[in-house]
Amino acid sequence: MNLILLTSADVIDSHHRVRLSGRRHRHILEILHAQKGDRLTVGLLNSKMGQAEVVAIDKNSVELEVNLENNPPLALALTLILALPRPQVVKRVLQSASSLGIKNIIFLNCFRVEKSLWQSSTLRSEEIKEQLILGLEQAKDTILPDVLLRKSFTAFVEEELPALIKGTLPVVAHPGSGQVCPRNVRQPVTLVIGPEGGLIDFELDRLRQMGFENVDLGERIYKVETVLPFLVGRLF
Amino acid sequence: MNLILLTSADVIDSHHRVRLSGRRHRHILEILHAQKGDRLTVGLLNSKMGQAEVVAIDKNSVELEVNLENNPPLALALTLILALPRPQVVKRVLQSASSLGIKNIIFLNCFRVEKSLWQSSTLRSEEIKEQLILGLEQAKDTILPDVLLRKSFTAFVEEELPALIKGTLPVVAHPGSGQVCPRNVRQPVTLVIGPEGGLIDFELDRLRQMGFENVDLGERIYKVETVLPFLVGRLF
Repeated sequence: MNLILLTSADVIDSHHRVRLSGRRHRHILEILHAQKGDRLTVGLLNSKMGQAEVVAIDKNSVELEVNLENNPPLALALTLILALPRPQVVKRVLQSASSLGIKNIIFLNCFRVEKSLWQSSTLRSEEIKEQLILGLEQAKDTILPDVLLRKSFTAFVEEELPALIKGTLPVVAHPGSGQVCPRNVRQPVTLVIGPEGGLIDFELDRLRQMGFENVDLGERIYKVETVLPFLVGRLF
Repeated sequence: MNLILLTSADVIDSHHRVRLSGRRHRHILEILHAQKGDRLTVGLLNSKMGQAEVVAIDKNSVELEVNLENNPPLALALTLILALPRPQVVKRVLQSASSLGIKNIIFLNCFRVEKSLWQSSTLRSEEIKEQLILGLEQAKDTILPDVLLRKSFTAFVEEELPALIKGTLPVVAHPGSGQVCPRNVRQPVTLVIGPEGGLIDFELDRLRQMGFENVDLGERIYKVETVLPFLVGRLF
């Protein structure tokens, strides 16, 4: 937690003072060992960042005097479309994507996605938000990403994708395609990452028809947790 | 497991036939649902890769007829020097580094590394090897990385680092340094990643004296699991 993320529900005195208990209080008390007068890096969810002074702290709660004057870091110009992975991977990818500054994440159904994965409790909106917030706290950001769940590949591709990719470079990470991944692109990107075992030809064809290019990362096959930051480092 | 990694201990008939039980057998039986006559991707540890035919399989073991004729993918020209992280992170980083093709990994002590971390059982050589093998099986590689543990920053920097960085681009990932990370370098790299909280000035100064450049990844702070593939994607 490199930034304490506040919400309007924490405010006890119009905009300037907040009281925290629970996870953030424990972090401030037990990890940061903060004392009265110490200054902490804070941010208001979907708003500005800044500093806060500890004005009171005990074993139940902490009160901070908050001064928010900085903008959060720029968002990454990337829309991530990801074949729904297993629950543990969903969690790690949400955290990682959030820390990387990705603000648009779409979990998509594909032929090789096990249908039972859509029942996972990790896809409940509160659980998704929890992981996204961990990513924001890690990266020092305040802007909560949007996460969409799309259970029909065809409906998504036909009805939503055309508008999404407008003005972006649309790429699919697909092993063995032979096309080298572009570097240092100066435009927004829409990135599709398929499931374990890959997208099937029908899916790749549909995306190609929409204008997507397959890009290849060489002979190695990476886990989605690895390939996402790898591609962000490569593309931007 | 995109490749079944074999060792010479699995061989039951000079070079051509292997018998597997345990984890790899279960994977072949329960995940791949392989039957007699099926062909699998295999590799021999620290040697070649190829195909194997299932010649016998039951609930106790599987026998494969192996044909190894391909070279493993090229190693990544990167030496990774990493401030020792927490045990769970050690595991994930070993797997990820191994899958990325990194063949030289050094866990280093630094001022902000908790000394108790050096007692972790994850640093036992068998446990390290287990994670490295998971990475090789993921990426389809056979060459086991070397992992060194160095508990004295100063001794390592003075006695070993000069030879290690010879002919390489030596860089330290350090937030706030202002130097943009180089892209698409065409030479070997020695990469230092500091601990949570960063390297201290003394450590940064010592590395700078040796010829290291600090490189900056922007305002965000990433977890080591995220920053490693990010940097590999960016640098190569």
